[in-house]
Amino acid sequence: MFTVNAIAAPSATEPLVRTTIERRDLGPRDVLIEITYAGICHSDIHTVKGDWGPVPYPLTVGHEIVGHVTEVGGEVTRHAVGDRVGVGCMVNSCRECENCRAGQEQYCSGGNVGTYAAVDRDGTVTQGGYSTHVVVDQDFVLRVPSSIPHEAAAPLLCAGITLYSPLAHWNAGPGKKVAIVGMGGLGHMGVKIAAAMGAEVTVLSQTLSKKDDSLRFGAEHHYATSDPATFEALKNTFDLIINTVSAAVDINAYLGLLRVDGTLVNVGAPPQPLPVHVFSLIGKRRSFAGSNIGGIAETQQMLDFCAERGIAPEVELITADAVNEAYERVLKSDVRYRFVIDVDSLR
Amino acid sequence: MFTVNAIAAPSATEPLVRTTIERRDLGPRDVLIEITYAGICHSDIHTVKGDWGPVPYPLTVGHEIVGHVTEVGGEVTRHAVGDRVGVGCMVNSCRECENCRAGQEQYCSGGNVGTYAAVDRDGTVTQGGYSTHVVVDQDFVLRVPSSIPHEAAAPLLCAGITLYSPLAHWNAGPGKKVAIVGMGGLGHMGVKIAAAMGAEVTVLSQTLSKKDDSLRFGAEHHYATSDPATFEALKNTFDLIINTVSAAVDINAYLGLLRVDGTLVNVGAPPQPLPVHVFSLIGKRRSFAGSNIGGIAETQQMLDFCAERGIAPEVELITADAVNEAYERVLKSDVRYRFVIDVDSLR
Repeated sequence: MFTVNAIAAPSATEPLVRTTIERRDLGPRDVLIEITYAGICHSDIHTVKGDWGPVPYPLTVGHEIVGHVTEVGGEVTRHAVGDRVGVGCMVNSCRECENCRAGQEQYCSGGNVGTYAAVDRDGTVTQGGYSTHVVVDQDFVLRVPSSIPHEAAAPLLCAGITLYSPLAHWNAGPGKKVAIVGMGGLGHMGVKIAAAMGAEVTVLSQTLSKKDDSLRFGAEHHYATSDPATFEALKNTFDLIINTVSAAVDINAYLGLLRVDGTLVNVGAPPQPLPVHVFSLIGKRRSFAGSNIGGIAETQQMLDFCAERGIAPEVELITADAVNEAYERVLKSDVRYRFVIDVDSLR
Repeated sequence: MFTVNAIAAPSATEPLVRTTIERRDLGPRDVLIEITYAGICHSDIHTVKGDWGPVPYPLTVGHEIVGHVTEVGGEVTRHAVGDRVGVGCMVNSCRECENCRAGQEQYCSGGNVGTYAAVDRDGTVTQGGYSTHVVVDQDFVLRVPSSIPHEAAAPLLCAGITLYSPLAHWNAGPGKKVAIVGMGGLGHMGVKIAAAMGAEVTVLSQTLSKKDDSLRFGAEHHYATSDPATFEALKNTFDLIINTVSAAVDINAYLGLLRVDGTLVNVGAPPQPLPVHVFSLIGKRRSFAGSNIGGIAETQQMLDFCAERGIAPEVELITADAVNEAYERVLKSDVRYRFVIDVDSLR
């Protein structure tokens, strides 16, 4: 074991503080990563506040991680010292169930090992990326192409794949009308990726304040969901709607925007159940679905796709000391579009 | 116009009575059908009781109709006098929208014309199949193969296609695990059709009382939903669940029975919304969908499939005078599995 600098939540109610955490010694299949940037995901905030259930404090969160390989175990073949790499929401899975074998580790039957607050296969509690170093099994480490700006790459590891996976699974592409609900960290990546896939993209945002950004990111249309006329104008329009909002919305109003055989996919999960009028589904053979990040191979595919198409998140760089203030701003939706911690400020 | 014998509901609260109704004179593309049998669908009961909104009384319902062609209009090419034919839930549609052009008249953008209680394109209110004759545009008349027992064929026109369409659309077949929820008029057809398609079929019924029937119809398994152990034993099992129950069920319990990428399709529509826990969907990329009957070409395909595979509904024949009693029994789920009116008793 060795000790590294980190930021941790001491409890559900206290601010995050600078501290040190332990990392395991390198196993034969492990990669040591010197972290350069770590994105701040809304899930980090839900987790440290205990919104999703009890967590083991003190806890270091962060599952949008990029950095460089500084050491590899004796059996590592996929990565080499000096490589620019990334780690997302998972650091392990059973690798034996039908989902893992199909490359869908995100749906591992026994449950994959989350990058933080999870019990790893060696019995330790995983600690996330708000830290100077991390040790990860090579199979859960991604290659980050050099054409992606280094400081902007981290949010691809969660926000990017969370949108890429359902867009790819439900065939966003030429001839398809796709709506992205919510223009935050997830949503703005959805707009860029769906547009790059060739779909006709519409942003459904609370107001028109981000309209210029929507169009700049590749959307053709931007509507305000605070205006009831939006739901009349766009009735029966979309093949695919990705809802990135994790607050409860009037789900039937959004289902009404789908054409025949359309699908609304939630990637955000409100804590309360959503009341679905079954007539909304039956009348046009619509589907209401959910999607959770993506598999490891698919995450690599997404990174390569973004590199080829010149797609990167829009980020606001902060130092380690600004994390608590950043959390406040995320909760007020006051960020365009993702905070990224410059981990040099932790060294 | 000409007058024919029928059974009609005088109001939402009175029993059905014998009466006469008017049928339009044959247009050039119309077919006159002498009705032999008419099935009783639960929708008929909801409609006459006003459960789904106001309807124009007096009203003759019935959208599971078989009979013989006795006269055709001058331009009719698809049917000839003497043919055994059927009519289902629709008697017309716009024929111009993208859905109609795609053979999905059930999802006609302007709304198709229902077989009863709808305004036909000539401005008259449509009257259904509890009647000795009906006049229908040739394009909405199906051929009923002679190998299907005549008295059992009628329920295929609604119950049959309502199950066949989602089973075909979501690829029920060899290697797929399919569950049918509810073993009534719809459900028992689902079991027979899904088994004939080659799927491994499980019936989820309130009790074990219909287990022998389930196995006889082609299911491999039958579980009681009144036993909570069922939901533990079958967690993450099915590729496809068709829910035929139109009462509100604990939808999250059923969603939990789907494996990764599985779909639960409601063909029944409870009046109240169903509270869906989005985590149920996200954790395994599950979908909750709805499906409404099927298109005309697909309905013909279903009839031909049933004829080839020797599939027919299980029916209890009644006379016209027993309709009110049959309604009471349907409401108590006391029918195995579909009442069919012998229309000879109306002549």
